[in-house]
Amino acid sequence: MRIGLIAPPWVAVPPPGYGGTEMVVDLLARGLRDAGHEVLLAAAADSTCPVPLVPGTAPADPDAMNTTETALAHAVRAYGAMATMDLVHDHTLLGPLYRHRPAGVPVTVTNHGPFTDTTRTIFRAMAPEVAIVAISHDQASRAGDVPIARVIHHGLDVAAIPPGAGDGGYVCFLGRICPDKGVLEAIGIARAAGVPLRIAAKMRERSEHRFFEECVEPALGGGVEYVGEVAGQRKYELLGGAVALLNPIQWPEPFGLVMIESLATGTPVVGTPQGAAPEIVRDGVTGFLAPVGELAALLPRAAELDRSRCRSDVAARFSAARMVGDHLAFYREVLASRS
Amino acid sequence: MRIGLIAPPWVAVPPPGYGGTEMVVDLLARGLRDAGHEVLLAAAADSTCPVPLVPGTAPADPDAMNTTETALAHAVRAYGAMATMDLVHDHTLLGPLYRHRPAGVPVTVTNHGPFTDTTRTIFRAMAPEVAIVAISHDQASRAGDVPIARVIHHGLDVAAIPPGAGDGGYVCFLGRICPDKGVLEAIGIARAAGVPLRIAAKMRERSEHRFFEECVEPALGGGVEYVGEVAGQRKYELLGGAVALLNPIQWPEPFGLVMIESLATGTPVVGTPQGAAPEIVRDGVTGFLAPVGELAALLPRAAELDRSRCRSDVAARFSAARMVGDHLAFYREVLASRS
Repeated sequence: MRIGLIAPPWVAVPPPGYGGTEMVVDLLARGLRDAGHEVLLAAAADSTCPVPLVPGTAPADPDAMNTTETALAHAVRAYGAMATMDLVHDHTLLGPLYRHRPAGVPVTVTNHGPFTDTTRTIFRAMAPEVAIVAISHDQASRAGDVPIARVIHHGLDVAAIPPGAGDGGYVCFLGRICPDKGVLEAIGIARAAGVPLRIAAKMRERSEHRFFEECVEPALGGGVEYVGEVAGQRKYELLGGAVALLNPIQWPEPFGLVMIESLATGTPVVGTPQGAAPEIVRDGVTGFLAPVGELAALLPRAAELDRSRCRSDVAARFSAARMVGDHLAFYREVLASRS
Repeated sequence: MRIGLIAPPWVAVPPPGYGGTEMVVDLLARGLRDAGHEVLLAAAADSTCPVPLVPGTAPADPDAMNTTETALAHAVRAYGAMATMDLVHDHTLLGPLYRHRPAGVPVTVTNHGPFTDTTRTIFRAMAPEVAIVAISHDQASRAGDVPIARVIHHGLDVAAIPPGAGDGGYVCFLGRICPDKGVLEAIGIARAAGVPLRIAAKMRERSEHRFFEECVEPALGGGVEYVGEVAGQRKYELLGGAVALLNPIQWPEPFGLVMIESLATGTPVVGTPQGAAPEIVRDGVTGFLAPVGELAALLPRAAELDRSRCRSDVAARFSAARMVGDHLAFYREVLASRS
């Protein structure tokens, strides 16, 4: 199969730092190629994903994040190169509504963000001709009248993630510095449980800096430490050394890659049962899901969980191979439904 | 004629503060209506322009400025209401490339921004089916291989702008706090000429605040004053009381509404001959255009220029009536070329 993948233009594939969508697109591109398919990837020009890239794209520019001009030019260049593909899988919001896509090439799209009034308006407009993939059943349940063609959970290359011993004597929080991700709740829970907390989080946007200065920084100290944004092997070392990942999210997060990354290192997840968390964490087996007020009491029990079970559960249910296989089966159905 | 106008979604029409595109769309909508045409306007929900508005749009949200999600949802809603129009005139970047526009309704677009590599890529993709309007000959000269169907200068409702006496004993700068607009050059010129300078400028974005704090604020004092962002009658009072508008722009600005606003109050323009400035200012008659280094010497001579001539020249060449007439003639040609 000749498969065109379109990644967002703001961050390279794979991402040098924070960038869940770009990590997933990278694994999907490699997996499809390894399965013998021809992959053409439209992504930021400085992407290092080892598949053919659409020429002429712009380099990654996080300052242009979510801006119309960059998104439009990316769609023009991406679809301009897709005429010979059997199918295009678009990971952007704008691409499927770009006017001059090559005729006769079916397009599927994954919604990597939440369904809101605004995004439902956008996906509703796509729906008549584009098959829409959700990344969790919880996300799909919020799609309203937008038809969801398939739910495909994200996956990881578990073999590339070193297991950790969980012997660092701390819990960790990993995400973005914003209220939704629950960083303040994590601080409160760790304090109440008397466990040191390491916060590794992206802080680049103005709102993130403001929230850090006003709310997070004053709460640091006394065992609560901000260690900056971590990526790659440092991220897995931090996760693997933790007794637990504290993930008390305060919104219905569509997926939550950090949970499967943590589990892949063997580290259980202690968090709120919001969004996709109940689809990812086996409560009482690979972590604990409960309201914020109960998490401090549950946190010490994370050390009793079987770390190898955490890792094997991710390997069984959230591997890149499973994710790639699900997509291939889905692509074949999309193509079959048209002939 | 039934004419659909699509304004950007970030700022209401007319704009409560800074917002050149929204001011132009407001005057165009009123003018077309007054000429007996049926106008349907897609704009932020809190717009007060007295023509029928497309229902269901979102309220203005300057924080969402230029973001893909807001632009996409706006295009979906706007074009969803345009099926019965004879012609759509789009003032957004995304709309003309939106996939599901009503079939058979011709679309024209005005580029309100500069032609750059990125925007040329975008307009080139539109060109086969959308007639592109430029707002100055200078802007059009930078379009490269993008075909420009017509140049139509902006216009103003000159009768609604009170003439000023230019007797305030100061010069003024009006724009945004950014290097391109030449605010630092204006300070240097006013200082060298020994004339008080009032700076009225938008400062909302992070980059604007940073530039103000690092470069502009240290240069204030000694007759140089920052008076904040001004709009409406306060803006015209400030302009009308000035001996001259100092407009030493440092980039090829596609138009420069502030120049015709200043001239409409009778206040000459002293600035650099960049972008559309030579199309707007009659050098030696309604202002002086020269390199930055020569402007301090020219500034005192602005007081010798005929203020009534400044106003009458704008009334003759940059009236809303002329702008509306140019658009109607253009719309008729677009429709005629299709039948």
